[in-house]
Amino acid sequence: MNISDIVQRSDTTLGRIFDWAVIGLIVVSMITLSIETLPNLSRTARTVLDMSEVVITGLFILEYCLRVATARRKHRYIFSFYGIIDFIAIIPFLISAGVVDLRVARVLRLFRIFRILKLTGCSRAIARFGKAIAIAKEEIVLFSAVTVVVIYLSAVGIYHLENAAQPEAFPSIIHSLWWATATLTTVGYGDVYPITAGGKLFTFLILMCGIGIVTVPAGLVAAALSKVRQDENQAEC
Amino acid sequence: MNISDIVQRSDTTLGRIFDWAVIGLIVVSMITLSIETLPNLSRTARTVLDMSEVVITGLFILEYCLRVATARRKHRYIFSFYGIIDFIAIIPFLISAGVVDLRVARVLRLFRIFRILKLTGCSRAIARFGKAIAIAKEEIVLFSAVTVVVIYLSAVGIYHLENAAQPEAFPSIIHSLWWATATLTTVGYGDVYPITAGGKLFTFLILMCGIGIVTVPAGLVAAALSKVRQDENQAEC
Amino acid sequence: MNISDIVQRSDTTLGRIFDWAVIGLIVVSMITLSIETLPNLSRTARTVLDMSEVVITGLFILEYCLRVATARRKHRYIFSFYGIIDFIAIIPFLISAGVVDLRVARVLRLFRIFRILKLTGCSRAIARFGKAIAIAKEEIVLFSAVTVVVIYLSAVGIYHLENAAQPEAFPSIIHSLWWATATLTTVGYGDVYPITAGGKLFTFLILMCGIGIVTVPAGLVAAALSKVRQDENQAEC
Amino acid sequence: MNISDIVQRSDTTLGRIFDWAVIGLIVVSMITLSIETLPNLSRTARTVLDMSEVVITGLFILEYCLRVATARRKHRYIFSFYGIIDFIAIIPFLISAGVVDLRVARVLRLFRIFRILKLTGCSRAIARFGKAIAIAKEEIVLFSAVTVVVIYLSAVGIYHLENAAQPEAFPSIIHSLWWATATLTTVGYGDVYPITAGGKLFTFLILMCGIGIVTVPAGLVAAALSKVRQDENQAEC
Repeated sequence: MNISDIVQRSDTTLGRIFDWAVIGLIVVSMITLSIETLPNLSRTARTVLDMSEVVITGLFILEYCLRVATARRKHRYIFSFYGIIDFIAIIPFLISAGVVDLRVARVLRLFRIFRILKLTGCSRAIARFGKAIAIAKEEIVLFSAVTVVVIYLSAVGIYHLENAAQPEAFPSIIHSLWWATATLTTVGYGDVYPITAGGKLFTFLILMCGIGIVTVPAGLVAAALSKVRQDENQAEC
Repeated sequence: MNISDIVQRSDTTLGRIFDWAVIGLIVVSMITLSIETLPNLSRTARTVLDMSEVVITGLFILEYCLRVATARRKHRYIFSFYGIIDFIAIIPFLISAGVVDLRVARVLRLFRIFRILKLTGCSRAIARFGKAIAIAKEEIVLFSAVTVVVIYLSAVGIYHLENAAQPEAFPSIIHSLWWATATLTTVGYGDVYPITAGGKLFTFLILMCGIGIVTVPAGLVAAALSKVRQDENQAEC
Repeated sequence: MNISDIVQRSDTTLGRIFDWAVIGLIVVSMITLSIETLPNLSRTARTVLDMSEVVITGLFILEYCLRVATARRKHRYIFSFYGIIDFIAIIPFLISAGVVDLRVARVLRLFRIFRILKLTGCSRAIARFGKAIAIAKEEIVLFSAVTVVVIYLSAVGIYHLENAAQPEAFPSIIHSLWWATATLTTVGYGDVYPITAGGKLFTFLILMCGIGIVTVPAGLVAAALSKVRQDENQAEC
Repeated sequence: MNISDIVQRSDTTLGRIFDWAVIGLIVVSMITLSIETLPNLSRTARTVLDMSEVVITGLFILEYCLRVATARRKHRYIFSFYGIIDFIAIIPFLISAGVVDLRVARVLRLFRIFRILKLTGCSRAIARFGKAIAIAKEEIVLFSAVTVVVIYLSAVGIYHLENAAQPEAFPSIIHSLWWATATLTTVGYGDVYPITAGGKLFTFLILMCGIGIVTVPAGLVAAALSKVRQDENQAEC
């Protein structure tokens, strides 16, 4: 067994250890990124975080070099979707000071998890999920369009009903869109809510129609996923 | 290819471009309508918005004339459901000053999106949705009736339990209906909530029974939609 | 066609009109009951409401007498479940002043709607719902038990984590149950919520596990309902 | 019939009575535990609660002894999962004063309910649930991973959009995780919410994508459960 098998394959013990090590490194990278944003960090903590970032990026550079070195078609890997993401993941080190916030680039490392998930155990579940989305595609598009229309109409309605009573909470249709989003998704923060009888009745009516529209797509995806799995099992038998 | 094919059909390239242009125009119309309601708009912004409204309505009038001119049975189109909506969409221009708020008429333009969606890609999804609703019709009617009854009973119950402790939050059964709606749909704004032990226990009990009743119809529609799609696929094979 | 056919049957035109008239009367009765609880009602409004209640109850008494008179087995009707509810619906008139709040008795009139729904169009949907509940009975019982256990454990956990920081919001496990109910049903009023890091992490963990447990029963009922309908359709073919 | 049949079996009348008596005892134990945490309890109430705890723990010790005495393979029972839980349930009495809070140990008694549920009626539903989880295992793992990633990305996004406007509500990515959890689960306490236009638009976008991801697993479990039950019914026929 050589280096290439460890880096490129996931069906060997060392290959799997390598994959999980990279995932672990990504998770550690995300945690340090989160801690860095904490206000009132001590100088020691900042130094430790900066040093750990250097080490993590070093390991990512090493991994990138290994992937390029062991890739059979180097150009194809470098310019592939995941090849570019792998490259972006090491940018924060290459450009130590820049105009854009490099922490955003570090967040992109998270997407590398999906590449590795694809290689390891979850590949079949991802494939099934892709098929389920393909099956329910037309319905998802339709319901997304209807959801946007319903949210817009709700905002127009509540604006006309509540604007006179609460000019600060519902100053325009654009501001009312926020209320419509929070209500139809049933999040209901409670920062804006209708106080007039008409606004409350309107809310009742749109909730009766609207909740179904917002929650149906999830049900469709779940049903399509179950269908795909069932078909797979029958094909195996 | 003549004008008629472009306006009336959706299976040609130019026809599809025409459809998407009208949808784009409707979306722009909705955005300007939203911006107009913003308070503290500068005079320049108002002039631009008024002028864009004139241009948009002009284009809608042009489209309406084209549709009438190219329709094979003109009377049938003019008095059809979508013919009337198309006509209402151009009213705000025809009557420049009126008693009713013409912005409401402009909102009706939104419904024209569904006509165009019907013509383009989503027609099959809409047909399936119609069939799914037809299949689950009886259940949807039953659950809607039960939902209204459960909301009413919840309002009566919480009124008796909370009225003494919070006469401002729950002054009558009618006011309590608002709480019942916000709670059973799990929106939970937090503007009114029970504070007595009895009211909280009652809320727990109605939530245990009530959440199911409110969310089951969405599950039924999703299941019926999956069924319709499955039957279609089998018919094709 | 005689009086008996109108009162007892739902498959004739007049019978259906009679059923819908009774439902209409129940709805009007519920609306007047709601309005009566409004504070600051004028004396005129109170007089009108009192008079309408006399008229409504008079009509219910008439209906009850008709039902008894036209019933084939009078004793069986009078002591049946719906016979007793029909009788309770007219009590508020018979006892004009009593110790108990007679308005509660008037709410019972609402249950009469289900009797009439059973007779008219929804009977098949109700039968299917009954079958669906019977199919998913064991799962519903299990998930209800698990829901109660999860809510209890959440309350115990949050009490230990938040009691020290917020002694007013989480003074005891019993008070914490209210928070657990509002959180796991995703109502989230916002009257009590964790503020410590431990409490927030705990909330995240129980939400990840708990939401599924609370929403699965609704999905089960929806799936069972779809199954029952499908079996019926196959039996018809 | 001897003592062994009563303690170890659930298919006899006395065995079932014994099981339900233990469940009743656990429920009483949980209620007294909850009441004990109430502040401002009178001295009499405390004495009664302490005494009832002694009695309850005494009965649990008696039950434990009976289970050990009647177990066919004593060692196997004592070191089994439920044997250890049964033992922990009686610890609070054995160590009357200790460093750790013994009330936590008492909560573990709750898990004993599942053992007894397994023995009595719900065993088939639990078996089906286990099978359903096994069927949907890969999807549940995938969606759990995606949920965590989506919550993390939402927290990163909202931190960058809201931190400048609300430094107290969104001081760091770690604090923003709390908002992301409350929003994507649609709990929406309302203690933190976006106030900038960018933050609100971002919330709209992640809610459109995120709600499906959080609610799909429940739908998958429901669908898998229905499938398992259907297969069982077909196997019986």
